[in-house]
Amino acid sequence: MIRFYAPDIASTLTLPESESGHCARVLRHRAGDVIEVVDGAGHLCRCRITDPDPRRVAVAIEAMEAVPEPWEGPITLAVAPTKNADRMEWLVEKAVETGVDRIVPVRCDHSERRDLKTERLLRVAVAAMKQSLKARLPQIAPMTDITAFLDSADTADAAGRYIAYCDASTPRTLLSAEIARRRPGAVTLLIGPEGDFSPREVQAATGRGFVPVTLGDCRLRTETAALNALTTVHVARQIAAAPPVS
Amino acid sequence: MIRFYAPDIASTLTLPESESGHCARVLRHRAGDVIEVVDGAGHLCRCRITDPDPRRVAVAIEAMEAVPEPWEGPITLAVAPTKNADRMEWLVEKAVETGVDRIVPVRCDHSERRDLKTERLLRVAVAAMKQSLKARLPQIAPMTDITAFLDSADTADAAGRYIAYCDASTPRTLLSAEIARRRPGAVTLLIGPEGDFSPREVQAATGRGFVPVTLGDCRLRTETAALNALTTVHVARQIAAAPPVS
Repeated sequence: MIRFYAPDIASTLTLPESESGHCARVLRHRAGDVIEVVDGAGHLCRCRITDPDPRRVAVAIEAMEAVPEPWEGPITLAVAPTKNADRMEWLVEKAVETGVDRIVPVRCDHSERRDLKTERLLRVAVAAMKQSLKARLPQIAPMTDITAFLDSADTADAAGRYIAYCDASTPRTLLSAEIARRRPGAVTLLIGPEGDFSPREVQAATGRGFVPVTLGDCRLRTETAALNALTTVHVARQIAAAPPVS
Repeated sequence: MIRFYAPDIASTLTLPESESGHCARVLRHRAGDVIEVVDGAGHLCRCRITDPDPRRVAVAIEAMEAVPEPWEGPITLAVAPTKNADRMEWLVEKAVETGVDRIVPVRCDHSERRDLKTERLLRVAVAAMKQSLKARLPQIAPMTDITAFLDSADTADAAGRYIAYCDASTPRTLLSAEIARRRPGAVTLLIGPEGDFSPREVQAATGRGFVPVTLGDCRLRTETAALNALTTVHVARQIAAAPPVS
């Protein structure tokens, strides 16, 4: 099943140019064919093609449904981008497949990568959303200084905020146990660069209510740790929601 | 911290050629320097360099320790290789970081990739073992027909065997709940190709005691599903071993 992405489908009743080409030229859809279109904001539309123009496919919406969020509470993944751009693109693809609401690339004291173009990451996110049959496109924030990110983190609510880092000198709890204990609600995961967070950053984060956590005994690369943390949130919530029977 | 890999370190007291070049030429280690060497079989050696020959570094072993397994029971990941070779290499890297004992590439009815060279996957596994500070090198089995793999699966013991597939017409339980229920012991995860398992394969697997499981509501690519299943095993075991406090 192929899904098309058209953020303004409800108002324009057309597919964007890139999607139009794929629909009309590559897949050879014709007038009268029915296709599925998501708007990236949680809506799935059943559309009938009225004009298969390969630059601007026009449709009539036959049905539109609001797809329920498949998980409780928004999940934010704030991560220092890897030096290697491929690894960051890979992370975005896998994070979108696994389930995330917002990805914030953060610039840290020890970041080797100081800048990041997010256009390509957004394209990766769109493809992963379509491929994994989701109707919501996660937000990809621009590269943000960690200080600005921490300042913007809403510390007023009871949101779960976790900072995963490697320095074993600070007591840390397992992220899995933390999530299993407080299942629903918003979650923010903060994952550091290859060189780890600086002591200043750890102090600033814990001062903002970020709980120091560990992902287990294995040393993981940045992008592996980020995906591992995200998967941990989903798995721990599954277990907490459906206690194991004996 | 850089670790070197020398499978025969205890008997030869030398590093293999590729590791020797990295040690003597790239890192410019000299006679008298102390390095860490793993043998891939669970031993970590503290070695002093006696001859920094860039083709054959010779050492004296000053200490050797058996590194305990960081998880209980061997974990086998049997997965249909992706059509795209990069995705399979990526999976091997991430699986080794996350923790696996054996990876078996299986040839399925719907596999687009019928053959696979495992030399490169083994090099990826060695690099990931060193990078994630492990002392054991997971086994990378040659490409195996799924029928032969199922015939070889030991059905006599109480090992946990799970088949993850997409067809929603068969009742499935969450892998996370299954693992949380029976925490220790061997685990075998069977992950199908892009086109899913054939009904014949599902029947053969369940006949061998493989429990049909789901990883959640999201449709995942083959390599994402494989890593997700592996992470689920570790996370569910963490939670079962350390019940959340309230």
